[in-house]
Amino acid sequence: CCFSRGEKNAGFDVLYHNMKHGQLATKELAEFVRERAAIEETYSKSMSKLAKMASNGSPQGTFAPMWDVFRVSSDKLALCHLELMRKMNDLIRDINKYGEEQVKIHRKTKEEMVGTVEAVQALQVQSGHLQKSKEGYHAKCLELDRLRKEGAPQKELEKAELKSKKAAESFGLCIEKYNRVGGEFEQKMSESAQKFQDIEEAHLRQMKQLIKGYSHSIEDTHVQVGQVHEEFKQNVENIGIDNLIQKFAEQKGTGKERPALAGFEEYMTALAPEGGKKSRAKAFRIPGLGKRDKEPDST
Amino acid sequence: CCFSRGEKNAGFDVLYHNMKHGQLATKELAEFVRERAAIEETYSKSMSKLAKMASNGSPQGTFAPMWDVFRVSSDKLALCHLELMRKMNDLIRDINKYGEEQVKIHRKTKEEMVGTVEAVQALQVQSGHLQKSKEGYHAKCLELDRLRKEGAPQKELEKAELKSKKAAESFGLCIEKYNRVGGEFEQKMSESAQKFQDIEEAHLRQMKQLIKGYSHSIEDTHVQVGQVHEEFKQNVENIGIDNLIQKFAEQKGTGKERPALAGFEEYMTALAPEGGKKSRAKAFRIPGLGKRDKEPDST
Repeated sequence: CCFSRGEKNAGFDVLYHNMKHGQLATKELAEFVRERAAIEETYSKSMSKLAKMASNGSPQGTFAPMWDVFRVSSDKLALCHLELMRKMNDLIRDINKYGEEQVKIHRKTKEEMVGTVEAVQALQVQSGHLQKSKEGYHAKCLELDRLRKEGAPQKELEKAELKSKKAAESFGLCIEKYNRVGGEFEQKMSESAQKFQDIEEAHLRQMKQLIKGYSHSIEDTHVQVGQVHEEFKQNVENIGIDNLIQKFAEQKGTGKERPALAGFEEYMTALAPEGGKKSRAKAFRIPGLGKRDKEPDST
Repeated sequence: CCFSRGEKNAGFDVLYHNMKHGQLATKELAEFVRERAAIEETYSKSMSKLAKMASNGSPQGTFAPMWDVFRVSSDKLALCHLELMRKMNDLIRDINKYGEEQVKIHRKTKEEMVGTVEAVQALQVQSGHLQKSKEGYHAKCLELDRLRKEGAPQKELEKAELKSKKAAESFGLCIEKYNRVGGEFEQKMSESAQKFQDIEEAHLRQMKQLIKGYSHSIEDTHVQVGQVHEEFKQNVENIGIDNLIQKFAEQKGTGKERPALAGFEEYMTALAPEGGKKSRAKAFRIPGLGKRDKEPDST
């Protein structure tokens, strides 16, 4: 057992207040976790906003598909931190539940320790008596000493000796009573100290368990966030530059040689040889002018 | 090469605007990273606030030393995210620097492509002429057909045939010119398309490099945050419950058997046997009453 009556027997008060401080610690832990939950909620909302920003990224240009990678990643990060917020809120419920149990335990403990409180009070009262008795005996001894040094008459000395002896007897009784009361206090206090220590150990065990919950939730989120980052990196790598350019070219129709003009067939047959003469025409031919264009056009 | 003249020869405009959109993409990336930096700054500040909250945790009670673990961890998290903000700000500088280079490249490219722009315009003009010429030839052919069906006089037919032949010749010349202009356009456009593609590839390579910087910074911070969490977990584990209780007992003086009262020696020697009698006195003795207390007291 680590706890004992303490300096000037004030241990009971110290230990009792420490126990009550346990309630404050529980409350403060809940507040701390609540603040953390609020921080995560804000972060999550900001990430959602960032995702919206990415989704508003210009749909024009070759870079456009990249914004989707940013959007997805930011949205997932928002979800991770929202889940952490939820876990923190669950934890706050657990902490508050423990706080209520704690109040009950402390109330019960206070009732059980009424005897110790009485013993403490009795010791304090007896301690006062002892002090007074000591001072009385002290005064009588000094008086006797003085008379002896002054060579006072025998009768006076005998009277003073009697007074001193009576004061010594009274002081002796006082010490006896003080020791009896002290013994009782010692026993009660020792029981209470053990009880306080048991409560304290259980309290700290519970608090550490709650902190472990806090720690685990944060760790889980950390792993998830790591996965989101890894995915982001992979997605960025997977979107090749050639890919982006090809995609853009296909969308904008700048990637295929399309007919520049069309619909001349009807009246152009007579002029066919004209178009066929040009050497450049192969590279830039008007459809319907060359023989190769007579084949059915795939549009 | 992926890029070409595109549908209705509008490819140049599409590709030119895509190039210019590259500037928008750079700007938007900078804005995105700026927003992320702001988010990290807010998170960092919130974590500092949380650390302050932990440092304001009650210094009373056995739980008190735990708050230091929370404080240190929150402070370190604040630093991690502050560093990420700084790295994001560095990245924004890089992005802006690239944006400036990009503007210069685009300006130079525009100058170099004046010939292509002229070729595009010439083709458009010639395309209009070709259309008109075709319609003229078309009308003449219809007229000739009509006269033939109506059995018009030979003279009228000959006149119409001559007109049709002239329209055909004019149309033929138009096609020839169109093909010549088209050929030139094709060549210029093909050079520009290649140039656009080179620019686009370099742009996307640069953008991916910048995104890699973003990704690396986030990854570094993620690793650091993981270390802070690990440290937190270890610190919580290292602070044993017995340890907390012992620390508290030592601080509050409830852990050592201290003298309840003192200073009786001078006048108590005569009463020494009285105090020695009590069996309880051993557990709860007043110092100076027993022989064992004559030893120098270590206070």
